[in-house]
Amino acid sequence: MKFDLIIHNGTLITVNAGFDIIPNGIVCVRNGTIAEVSERVAGAPLPPAAETIDARGGIVMPGLVNTHTHLPMTLFRGLADDLPLMDWLNGTIFPAEAAHIRPETAFWGAQLACAEMILAGTTTCCDGYFHEDAVARAVQASGMRAVLGQGVIDFPAPGVPDPDKNIEQAERFVETWQGAGPLISAAVFCHSPYTCSGETLKRAKSLARRKNVLFQIHTAETRTERDQSLKAHGASPVRYLDDLGLLDAGTLLVHAVWTDAADVGRIAKTGAAISHNPESNMKLASGIAPVGEYLAAGIRVGLGTDGCASNNNLDLFQEMDTAAKLHKVSTLDPTVMDARTVIRMATAAGADAIGLGEVTGSLEIGKQADVIILDTATPHMTPLYHPASQIVYAAKASDVRTVIVGGRVLMSGGNIATLDLERISTEIDVISHRIKERQP
Amino acid sequence: MKFDLIIHNGTLITVNAGFDIIPNGIVCVRNGTIAEVSERVAGAPLPPAAETIDARGGIVMPGLVNTHTHLPMTLFRGLADDLPLMDWLNGTIFPAEAAHIRPETAFWGAQLACAEMILAGTTTCCDGYFHEDAVARAVQASGMRAVLGQGVIDFPAPGVPDPDKNIEQAERFVETWQGAGPLISAAVFCHSPYTCSGETLKRAKSLARRKNVLFQIHTAETRTERDQSLKAHGASPVRYLDDLGLLDAGTLLVHAVWTDAADVGRIAKTGAAISHNPESNMKLASGIAPVGEYLAAGIRVGLGTDGCASNNNLDLFQEMDTAAKLHKVSTLDPTVMDARTVIRMATAAGADAIGLGEVTGSLEIGKQADVIILDTATPHMTPLYHPASQIVYAAKASDVRTVIVGGRVLMSGGNIATLDLERISTEIDVISHRIKERQP
Repeated sequence: MKFDLIIHNGTLITVNAGFDIIPNGIVCVRNGTIAEVSERVAGAPLPPAAETIDARGGIVMPGLVNTHTHLPMTLFRGLADDLPLMDWLNGTIFPAEAAHIRPETAFWGAQLACAEMILAGTTTCCDGYFHEDAVARAVQASGMRAVLGQGVIDFPAPGVPDPDKNIEQAERFVETWQGAGPLISAAVFCHSPYTCSGETLKRAKSLARRKNVLFQIHTAETRTERDQSLKAHGASPVRYLDDLGLLDAGTLLVHAVWTDAADVGRIAKTGAAISHNPESNMKLASGIAPVGEYLAAGIRVGLGTDGCASNNNLDLFQEMDTAAKLHKVSTLDPTVMDARTVIRMATAAGADAIGLGEVTGSLEIGKQADVIILDTATPHMTPLYHPASQIVYAAKASDVRTVIVGGRVLMSGGNIATLDLERISTEIDVISHRIKERQP
Repeated sequence: MKFDLIIHNGTLITVNAGFDIIPNGIVCVRNGTIAEVSERVAGAPLPPAAETIDARGGIVMPGLVNTHTHLPMTLFRGLADDLPLMDWLNGTIFPAEAAHIRPETAFWGAQLACAEMILAGTTTCCDGYFHEDAVARAVQASGMRAVLGQGVIDFPAPGVPDPDKNIEQAERFVETWQGAGPLISAAVFCHSPYTCSGETLKRAKSLARRKNVLFQIHTAETRTERDQSLKAHGASPVRYLDDLGLLDAGTLLVHAVWTDAADVGRIAKTGAAISHNPESNMKLASGIAPVGEYLAAGIRVGLGTDGCASNNNLDLFQEMDTAAKLHKVSTLDPTVMDARTVIRMATAAGADAIGLGEVTGSLEIGKQADVIILDTATPHMTPLYHPASQIVYAAKASDVRTVIVGGRVLMSGGNIATLDLERISTEIDVISHRIKERQP
């Protein structure tokens, strides 16, 4: 009954249903799975284990779950900021994608993203982009857990010159990656209700249903999108998708900023989930999603960073802090989005929103051992009265000392076991010089 | 003509009037003062210097200026969060201050704050609290630059049991610290228009004028304060202060969230400055200050974190990112508060707002050598197209590798030369245990 790994000498933030916090806890791992979570009996020896990790009095918590990324967009981090949305999209991002996104650039951009996420305590992401095969290879090599969808859009896109083949390529992606091991889950990623026809949307969702995979779609991100939907379809984006039959528990609505009470009711009734990306919505001046109403309606809401062109990082610690504060000020109520709610969104609820609720997101027996350890022996983490509050309002990505996915240590003391940072840096240097040269 | 110190091999973000960015720049320091700022001639040797620091291709910029802190409140970091404002203040913060703030706790809380600020690249702060003598000793020992004011309030306060003596004690503080060397500037800190009588406010400002020091005051922080001011004085908080004759170029209005167009005009006309604390205003659900209007009116605006009970950190990198994003989403305009504007608020404009505009806040000849170096060789700082954008939207406090104040290296590679972190940790441990035990 020897364990493979035991993490001890830390305060466990379980993020189980009762949000139990266990001082001096131990997490025991066997075959990549959490086999025991308990308080250590004072003075008792640790159970036998092949490996032990001393958390040194720090915080032990589930790895963070980023419910919305476009990993290769690390390549465009900071390429253009502080611009009107349409100038940014049409003048910079779309041309840069058309000119520079190929399988090898998508691969290296995604590897860079994985390095950033692992260093910052993210163990799972939910991604959608083009050349997603290359993204999947990059993520698989990193050892992270991910839900990945090949992009579907009714325009020529990187790797999909003929939009008539978009569903076919998305289907091929699912078939390639659906059985590729325990870490990668395939998905379908439709860009949005305004860039895909109703027919495309229905066929894409039908593919997702047939394959029993997650269906992700940007929805109601901007006021312009909402207004155009009302004009074109006589319906809000959410109602339009619902009328097409696209909303169910396997659908993840990304952003959901511009919704009304009827939309909230539809989302709740159908069981669709939401990816909330507050920093992207702030930076692009999209608006503030009514997250309090979503939570009150029982809708599953996870947290996401969005791509690095619109944030400009993949840091969920900062995203938690911002989410908590943004909704307090926008409602003028300091009690909304309390620390536990926000941590849950960045872990268990996020996992649930992307279809991995049984797999990751909490320290509970039977779940995969996706665990991070935070150092608390720093000035900005001192004193430490309430661990949940400290995680949201004081902790930084740089406090993460150890990252474990499925029982495997991916990062320890800033060193990533699975990725060659020097090689990534060299490759990104070449690619980013090319991107810079071709800037208008 | 040998220099004392040369920083080389970095990209200089000067934050001078033209916001010049100098690739492969050098900063030469003599007698604690910046003596040269220029691009290095390719292939030329460095000028002779007693010490050189290699920035290793990173970013070299002015140290950050935190225009509003209550340093000892690190002791209450995370003690109570997510509560209604009055429960938080009256149920936790005020009782904790009354029970626990003494000269020695204020000293250790301030030392902890200095450690956190130095590690995060802040070289100057503007503080107001009680037992400010102890704060001043703590800050002076750290080697940081600071503007410090003893608190004035018309209630019994820590160290000021008799409010009738509040001005007298504030005056004694100014007299003690006004000539205490180049790093410490004395100030007067009036708590607010609603906790001080009109008479106290006028006497405090008169003291500040007589001594030619900064006058700091929390103003128009919450809607309740604004409404009560309208009821009690028939005037907004800003107009009330103006009517009392308190507004001039030596007055720093902290928060200034609830102001109208007439208030903006009064602030602009009198030359008073503003300390903008977006994260505190968000977390306490106070509201969003109309910073765009202040800037448009030519008002000097600096950035501040507020105390650690209401943020919960002293991290100006996060504050810059949040400031930029908050105003974009609140105005639905992604072009407002661009990266350069926000960096200026956290450096040169902040220094100007607290009366140190000639002293610090930019890399310019004649200013004090308050300089920080950021490491850019990390995944989240890669690629690097535009340094200003990267500083605001991607950099983290943990990227700061070197901190220099007045030409003296206070921190290098995470090691603080001036503070004993172990001793601070031990002292804070004892104090915070006492605070926790006496919690309701």
